[in-house]
Amino acid sequence: MKKIINRPDDVVRDMIEGMRLANQDIRVLPGTGVVVRKDAPVPGKVGVISGGGSGHEPAHGGFVGKGMLDAACAGDVFTSPSVDQMMKAIRAVDAGRGVLIIAKNYTGDNLNFDMAMELLEEEGIKTAKVKVHDDAAVEENADTTGRRGVAGTMLVQKVACACAEAGGSLEEVKEAAQSAADNVRTIGFALSPCIIPAVGKPGFSLGEEEMELGTGIHGEAGIRRMKVDTAHNLVEIMLEKLLADMPLEEGEEVCVLVNGMGSTPLMELYILYREVHMKLTGEGIRIAKAYVGEYMTSLEMAGASVSIMKLDERRKRFLLAPADTAGFKQF
Amino acid sequence: MKKIINRPDDVVRDMIEGMRLANQDIRVLPGTGVVVRKDAPVPGKVGVISGGGSGHEPAHGGFVGKGMLDAACAGDVFTSPSVDQMMKAIRAVDAGRGVLIIAKNYTGDNLNFDMAMELLEEEGIKTAKVKVHDDAAVEENADTTGRRGVAGTMLVQKVACACAEAGGSLEEVKEAAQSAADNVRTIGFALSPCIIPAVGKPGFSLGEEEMELGTGIHGEAGIRRMKVDTAHNLVEIMLEKLLADMPLEEGEEVCVLVNGMGSTPLMELYILYREVHMKLTGEGIRIAKAYVGEYMTSLEMAGASVSIMKLDERRKRFLLAPADTAGFKQF
Repeated sequence: MKKIINRPDDVVRDMIEGMRLANQDIRVLPGTGVVVRKDAPVPGKVGVISGGGSGHEPAHGGFVGKGMLDAACAGDVFTSPSVDQMMKAIRAVDAGRGVLIIAKNYTGDNLNFDMAMELLEEEGIKTAKVKVHDDAAVEENADTTGRRGVAGTMLVQKVACACAEAGGSLEEVKEAAQSAADNVRTIGFALSPCIIPAVGKPGFSLGEEEMELGTGIHGEAGIRRMKVDTAHNLVEIMLEKLLADMPLEEGEEVCVLVNGMGSTPLMELYILYREVHMKLTGEGIRIAKAYVGEYMTSLEMAGASVSIMKLDERRKRFLLAPADTAGFKQF
Repeated sequence: MKKIINRPDDVVRDMIEGMRLANQDIRVLPGTGVVVRKDAPVPGKVGVISGGGSGHEPAHGGFVGKGMLDAACAGDVFTSPSVDQMMKAIRAVDAGRGVLIIAKNYTGDNLNFDMAMELLEEEGIKTAKVKVHDDAAVEENADTTGRRGVAGTMLVQKVACACAEAGGSLEEVKEAAQSAADNVRTIGFALSPCIIPAVGKPGFSLGEEEMELGTGIHGEAGIRRMKVDTAHNLVEIMLEKLLADMPLEEGEEVCVLVNGMGSTPLMELYILYREVHMKLTGEGIRIAKAYVGEYMTSLEMAGASVSIMKLDERRKRFLLAPADTAGFKQF
């Protein structure tokens, strides 16, 4: 394992400390992995928080700041944050109008967020939660806990946080987040595994010319192993899967996110985006906004994902509103 | 070679096309790899351009936009852009007050930029050039063509472009760029090589637990191979080398850039930054601004670099001025 770290057990602590030292607009609640907007609680604003296991940076600590999250709870690598972290985060950002939690659909994250919400209700803090389950690679059926939350979560956060910034009530912010979550799908692939520092070896392996479609952001098995194909063919396969799940009509307006998993060069992400753009516009879809870069990574995994969010006037306005955070800036 | 591309020979063309499709603030001069600010030439403003081989994204095409570059010439992967590209870029951004070229110190880039400048002089376009050679790993002596230009180039571009945006004359913009170039040093390391798409295999190899200090951004040999060390020890070694070359006095103000080479996770970049921050502030150095992320990559190379720029009041003001580009945004 080649990693530039100190002790494997300290990676999250050291990283969060590095984030804080590099970013004057955030603070860290002492002794926790909770990153908070320096000016939180923001008077009159509904708070929005998120969180999950570490290893997906800049998500979510890198999205804390003006126009985006009020706080993010960082668990250990690929491990849910604790109920205690979540309670501290919620208390730190509540300005009296309540706090929305945006959770990716993982069992541990949600159990803990639900527990934190229940305990805080007794303190009189209003909370609500929206689950993101955008991974179109996972079938929704009785045997699974449902789709995983992956890169599309960032777009849901952006929409919800802009609604909060615009003065929305907890109900309105929740409704904005829910409508974003309902209208976003993601499909990803991996070319190589990643290594959890405390484990020290890859979680799975792929052959010399092999890739996997639908791999989760923690290396969860995907839906199909195949020979590495051209960007063109790969996008055909990915979009077929995604659009079967969320059909788009001619003339419909969308946002596209091409997200790098960690070690796929920006060059390849732009090549992928070109294929997505040509395919969608060729079918009469209008792309109102495109994001290409690393937003929800899996340590050093090679691979990428494509997310599409359907836009209506309201989601579009919230999506395009300004934000100023380390990992997501928009004028 | 696992890459998400179409034909290896088309990677730069496809990437530039992807950049253009994803970014409404740029255009691409037809049939070239020249990315230009959509509103160029900006009336009354000195133009600033840069360029070099591709494979270092977001540098330089991702830095084209408001507050940063007016244009960037993308050569083939790790290959100098042509004289023709450079001439087209300069013509496209000249608003009559001249154009500054910021070149990394590579022979081919500079020969071509010099030729382009000479030819354009005959057309009456005023140009000037500043060379960046910030790599503290390379000794300056008669046997070398001098230090290489690496990640510190982005900071030089930022300072120069803010001076141009503020209305500086060609001489003033050149002077700002030169003062930035004179006051920045970088030291990097590699944990793994990268693969040029048209070559198909790594340019060098490193042992299972081996890293190389001072590797160039095209995989040029560094100054020392060593066992992978802790982030703490590595930063000690890197800063010793860098500060021997550019000593800092107690109380001095600097900007720090921790730049990822391609496949090193943001987690590790923040861990590295933490060490740099503690070391410098422990010696009484004031860090006015920190950047942590991927700005000057080497395809999928694993590794990172640390750049330090000494600030005076003027460089600081220009550095902190706003910019809105795909690869570098600042409010």
